[in-house]
Amino acid sequence: MNDMTVAQAGVTLDDIRAAHARIVPHIHRTPLLHSRLLDELAGCEVHFKCENLQKIGAFKARGALNAVLGLDDETAAHGVATHSSGNHGAALAMAAGVRGIPAHIVMPSNAPAVKKAAVAGYGGQIVECEPTLVARETTLESVIAQHGSHVVHPYDDARVIAGQGTTALELLEQLDGIDVVVIPVGGGGLLSGMSTAIKSLNPAIEVMAAEPAGADDAFRSFGLGYLVPQENPNTIADGLLTSLGDLNYAIIREHVDTMVTVEDETIIEAMKLQWTRLKSVVEPSGAVTFAALLEHPERFRGRRVACVISGGNVDLEKLPW
Amino acid sequence: MNDMTVAQAGVTLDDIRAAHARIVPHIHRTPLLHSRLLDELAGCEVHFKCENLQKIGAFKARGALNAVLGLDDETAAHGVATHSSGNHGAALAMAAGVRGIPAHIVMPSNAPAVKKAAVAGYGGQIVECEPTLVARETTLESVIAQHGSHVVHPYDDARVIAGQGTTALELLEQLDGIDVVVIPVGGGGLLSGMSTAIKSLNPAIEVMAAEPAGADDAFRSFGLGYLVPQENPNTIADGLLTSLGDLNYAIIREHVDTMVTVEDETIIEAMKLQWTRLKSVVEPSGAVTFAALLEHPERFRGRRVACVISGGNVDLEKLPW
Repeated sequence: MNDMTVAQAGVTLDDIRAAHARIVPHIHRTPLLHSRLLDELAGCEVHFKCENLQKIGAFKARGALNAVLGLDDETAAHGVATHSSGNHGAALAMAAGVRGIPAHIVMPSNAPAVKKAAVAGYGGQIVECEPTLVARETTLESVIAQHGSHVVHPYDDARVIAGQGTTALELLEQLDGIDVVVIPVGGGGLLSGMSTAIKSLNPAIEVMAAEPAGADDAFRSFGLGYLVPQENPNTIADGLLTSLGDLNYAIIREHVDTMVTVEDETIIEAMKLQWTRLKSVVEPSGAVTFAALLEHPERFRGRRVACVISGGNVDLEKLPW
Repeated sequence: MNDMTVAQAGVTLDDIRAAHARIVPHIHRTPLLHSRLLDELAGCEVHFKCENLQKIGAFKARGALNAVLGLDDETAAHGVATHSSGNHGAALAMAAGVRGIPAHIVMPSNAPAVKKAAVAGYGGQIVECEPTLVARETTLESVIAQHGSHVVHPYDDARVIAGQGTTALELLEQLDGIDVVVIPVGGGGLLSGMSTAIKSLNPAIEVMAAEPAGADDAFRSFGLGYLVPQENPNTIADGLLTSLGDLNYAIIREHVDTMVTVEDETIIEAMKLQWTRLKSVVEPSGAVTFAALLEHPERFRGRRVACVISGGNVDLEKLPW
């Protein structure tokens, strides 16, 4: 799969536009936030695209809705399924609720109570399993065998990628003259979708990925020129622990201009600034982009920067400071 | 002063409109936020007027700007002064900066470092004193003697009241069909200003004040029919510790329909819900209004409610949970 081309990955601007038309009644057009004080701190003009204010508190609502709403009726009737310990599970449960079909979400037994509550709150059926990748996959297979559910992968799926890409359509309508867009990367769903839209609409805009130094498989893959998996990730950005997907890598290799990594301490500093100055609750994975500005200021000096805040789902009892 | 009438207090809808025209280039028209999930929890339709997104992170920017921008040039030339351990100090420093005049802010030596940093960040001159009310007042007098500064009281001032009232002008433009507006009360600046505007524009709207049970002087004064001072307040809502002002009481007695008190544990619950569901950082004093909905749901059932979030300045190192 490492030699897959963008064409084979099969996500075009038209797909992203079709996704937007499909999901727009069910998502928020999230606002851009701006703070003069944060501009001064960062040494550039920075606008935050606030997907922490999206339905379910993260951009994942977009991809899950596009996948679920695009199913034919017969497939949809059997429901959808995934394994997730994070925002994708809540997003898929919400999307299934919109469509009026069941969603089976395989979650590790040690998933945080708040994450389980979110899935259950959107009407998802939680199927618990042992906290190993093998157990997650075998449990998901048994769910499929039992219910005939359609699986929606959290990022390595063209429909999900197109859905996440709709974030960029809105951003480019909301702000003119962008020099660089900074996007977090974990599995690469948001990055591959947004970079496709941005490069199709305005190739002059720099697309930069930001990744935690403790889970830097995308950074290493990008530099090496082939996909290397993430082993033993160690970062507070718990939404970005996973390895880059195959489809995502094919697209990213083509459309992403630059990548930077950031240390966890910078992520915490960025979070605190966004909480206190924007008054906006940002999760660690969502603060990685502003952390990139703080840790690599020379890359942004005097430029107009759009930073994606990917989500805002945090456990207030377990803050990382 | 307890027998002062509204007419003597001297704040009219015209004053509030004039204040809005004066300050509008320098303030944010703060958004209303809404969450279906919070509606379900509260059993009513609740819209949050987000003054935590106001300049300096609190509504206090409005009153301070109206007072400072309305000064004649000769008075302004000597600068302004106040004593404050909270948001009014930052607001007055910011307003003086807009006018290009000095601001001397008397602060107790034990004021939190973040509050001092805010005042200094807006260019205010901090004058430290012992942490007693007597020391604050004598230090302020010496500042006046030295610089001839004009004093702007945080709430017991008609210009400040008119400035805070502009919050209601915006709210009533932003949302139709409001049944009740819930407003926090400490010194009473926001409550007296907003209630004047609301009752002038639409007397059918219920104006309700929300106050911490541990600092309930306004609640007691309202019930008793005369002004009783707050002694030994004990609440996490550190912006609402102070006693009601004389001008404020005269207006509130006339224009406020109902008052409720809330326990600190409900304030914390309200804060957490606003942080996690609205993704909005709200300070304890700002969460008192939503706490009123949670603690007294029968007062709001099925109604359209506007809740003022008065501010969002918190120390992330000292959260109340």
